[in-house]
Amino acid sequence: MRLLPLALALCFAIPASTDASAAGGQTRIAPADIAVAERLRDAALKDDTAWDFTEGLSTEIPMRMPGSANDLKSREWVTAKFKELGFDKVWSEPVTYPVWVRRSESAEIVSPFPQKLVVTALGNSPATPPGGLAGEIVAFPTLDALKAAAAESVRGKIVYVGARMVARQDGKDYGIGSTLRTNGPSIASGKGAAGFLLRSAGTDHERLPHTGATRFADGVAPIPAAALSAPDAEQIERVLARGQPVRVKLALDCGMDGTYTGANVIAELRGSKQPDEYFLTGGHLDSWDLGTGAIDDAVGIGISVGAAKLIAQLPQRPARSIRVVAWANEESGIHGGNAYGEKHGKEVARAVLGSESDLGADRIYKMSATVKPESRDALAQIAAVLKPLGIDYDTQFQGKGGADLAAMHKAGMAAVSMHRDATRYFAWHHTANDTLDKIDPEQLRQNVAAYAVLAYLAAQADGDFGSKPGAFVGQDKKN
Amino acid sequence: MRLLPLALALCFAIPASTDASAAGGQTRIAPADIAVAERLRDAALKDDTAWDFTEGLSTEIPMRMPGSANDLKSREWVTAKFKELGFDKVWSEPVTYPVWVRRSESAEIVSPFPQKLVVTALGNSPATPPGGLAGEIVAFPTLDALKAAAAESVRGKIVYVGARMVARQDGKDYGIGSTLRTNGPSIASGKGAAGFLLRSAGTDHERLPHTGATRFADGVAPIPAAALSAPDAEQIERVLARGQPVRVKLALDCGMDGTYTGANVIAELRGSKQPDEYFLTGGHLDSWDLGTGAIDDAVGIGISVGAAKLIAQLPQRPARSIRVVAWANEESGIHGGNAYGEKHGKEVARAVLGSESDLGADRIYKMSATVKPESRDALAQIAAVLKPLGIDYDTQFQGKGGADLAAMHKAGMAAVSMHRDATRYFAWHHTANDTLDKIDPEQLRQNVAAYAVLAYLAAQADGDFGSKPGAFVGQDKKN
Repeated sequence: MRLLPLALALCFAIPASTDASAAGGQTRIAPADIAVAERLRDAALKDDTAWDFTEGLSTEIPMRMPGSANDLKSREWVTAKFKELGFDKVWSEPVTYPVWVRRSESAEIVSPFPQKLVVTALGNSPATPPGGLAGEIVAFPTLDALKAAAAESVRGKIVYVGARMVARQDGKDYGIGSTLRTNGPSIASGKGAAGFLLRSAGTDHERLPHTGATRFADGVAPIPAAALSAPDAEQIERVLARGQPVRVKLALDCGMDGTYTGANVIAELRGSKQPDEYFLTGGHLDSWDLGTGAIDDAVGIGISVGAAKLIAQLPQRPARSIRVVAWANEESGIHGGNAYGEKHGKEVARAVLGSESDLGADRIYKMSATVKPESRDALAQIAAVLKPLGIDYDTQFQGKGGADLAAMHKAGMAAVSMHRDATRYFAWHHTANDTLDKIDPEQLRQNVAAYAVLAYLAAQADGDFGSKPGAFVGQDKKN
Repeated sequence: MRLLPLALALCFAIPASTDASAAGGQTRIAPADIAVAERLRDAALKDDTAWDFTEGLSTEIPMRMPGSANDLKSREWVTAKFKELGFDKVWSEPVTYPVWVRRSESAEIVSPFPQKLVVTALGNSPATPPGGLAGEIVAFPTLDALKAAAAESVRGKIVYVGARMVARQDGKDYGIGSTLRTNGPSIASGKGAAGFLLRSAGTDHERLPHTGATRFADGVAPIPAAALSAPDAEQIERVLARGQPVRVKLALDCGMDGTYTGANVIAELRGSKQPDEYFLTGGHLDSWDLGTGAIDDAVGIGISVGAAKLIAQLPQRPARSIRVVAWANEESGIHGGNAYGEKHGKEVARAVLGSESDLGADRIYKMSATVKPESRDALAQIAAVLKPLGIDYDTQFQGKGGADLAAMHKAGMAAVSMHRDATRYFAWHHTANDTLDKIDPEQLRQNVAAYAVLAYLAAQADGDFGSKPGAFVGQDKKN
């Protein structure tokens, strides 16, 4: 009851469509459902299902590289866990993808001051020749500086780009780092570079480099590409600052290794009234191999599972289904999300709303959405239930739900984004430090509470959120 | 002038020997010298000689393992740097020590949940057999629990001890970690263990293990011994908690490799009145190989050098000499410090006071000393000059000056300890994270200011601090 004033305040604070609330086509949530959602929220703050799931997966099947032995093992593990947790239906849908393997990696400054460097190969990097690739460093502060460089200054050399990221709540600097990692090697190769090194796409100062996929444009020869830890990047910069030519040697044993057919593993609580319509959530099951994949993204599935488990314990299933997906191979190209979109995009209206979790489990501080205008009041009702969790509703930003939902959103699925505090996340992301101890159980419970509320109310809402073929075409460019 | 009230207040606050200040044998510092020390202190807060030294050594000659190629290179580097900085006399004194080498190291859980573990061999560990050492884990929470264990429970197994350290200003938990690391493997071997793993002697949660020397007691067979990073230690504990036998495989290629003759490199500002008496300071030149040895202990020498450089810029040399030593091979057994003590201990009265720097360069928060009672007033005078730096004088604790000075102190040298804030230090100590970026230039300058004051006033003091053969026998047990 103490929430009522807050909920009312929030409704009045949303000017857009409130005036039209009496009109037809408005999506609404019944007060009784709000009350249930509040109880779910409060119960989630005392529930450790998500923690237990994350602890189990990251302890028993860590390092879930797509196409590795742990790809199958992790699907078996999560299938068994979904069944054990009481989902009504558990199944898999095949996904085929190319496989990249990492065998070994090392680097060193050869001259003028010989020393080891800490590096990790980027996903999709080819190997260096046997014995390693030695070359002179040519350094750039940013990707734009590399883009602007004459090919003659780069040809035959090992390009180093030292762009930096700052830790921020909204994690926006990952745009700098991920763009450099994804496109830098291809751009360098296009100018004739022999190899590529970047300062890790991370915000930390640990001696742990950040891996992640790179991508070579069509017609560009793949070149060996690796990330230096931040202290190693700064060491290279100090050596370069002395003004002598700096030669490094890079030895990467890694590369593409055929294709593999894995699967998206899907679990569903079947709806009691419109079971063929569903709220879509989950996280990706694969991880990089350096860490245990606890924060990226065992915990994302854990949050969904924790929320669904609480809803499953209600006396009655909600009207619509709740679908949790453990997506295959997100890291090397969102293969699971794309496969899901290909299979289910043609019935996109059934996916009434989607929201993935793939940014660890630190506190969610705001919600945003891309939905039809007539459902904004319902979103505001949901936001009012989330408000005591410290979650604001940003009505300007248009959240798209997450990478694994991009294909579905593009097909026309309405989406909600839960924005997590990314201040800590990009220190650990894609490094050996992606381990369970980085998850704060209290903040994790707040995440579960938010998803329990969202999933339940989306599944119970009287009316939809606008999912239909092509519903949100043209809105993508806004953020 | 603004310091005078503080200085007076501090003098009155030291009750012990102030009453007897008129008596003979009291060591005193002249007001004019205090004024010079205050100017040195203030100049140090704007001087970056220590930073430049540390940056140079850790960038150009990182990973200074005793007996490695960098052992000689670093001595050449520091010799040249001492000369360049204007010391009056620079020389080396040979030190011979056994050499231990690390070639490669890896570990994994074999069953029930196969996965890589991040480990590093302990100094003095032998190699595992070719192909690695596989065995079942037997776990203990503390070294005491291992000591209490029956040999039958340990025999043939790989012992794991999971003792934890908490980050504290006084760093006292390093006692727990270093005792475990130093003695654990020998105790386990004495009970018939095949190998030894410990949770790293560190306070961090990074995926970077802490190396450091272990020591096998006479008659005990050396066994392979390594440290797990904290997240890996906790992962092993989670796997063990599931109640099944846990098998690990350890592959260490490392071991003893003959003996080597390196050297302590010594630089001196020659005193203007009693040049054969000297204030003794410095740090150790060797480092572990995982990091660049910036905080342990390039910066320790850097602090001494920064302080001496400021004193060298005065119009006149102080009465006594100031001697800076870059000690050889501290890490594997204080070989340089012991050699220095063996050579110079018989003339210990000439070393009027000693204070080493070997705990990084975070803020010094207190000073303590082991000196003759008649010099406590002089220490209080020094403390008054340090007070504006945020440094308290702990008259109860008896600082012994540092590991490389232990032999000299045991021989009878008076000593001062500058206690640094160790809150951050033991997160990085002996790991790959020992890099320049962990040093805060502002806190480093405070360190230099403290040492400039101490060195100058010890060299100028009218009277000594009690150094003489056997002076402090029996005082060691007090802390």
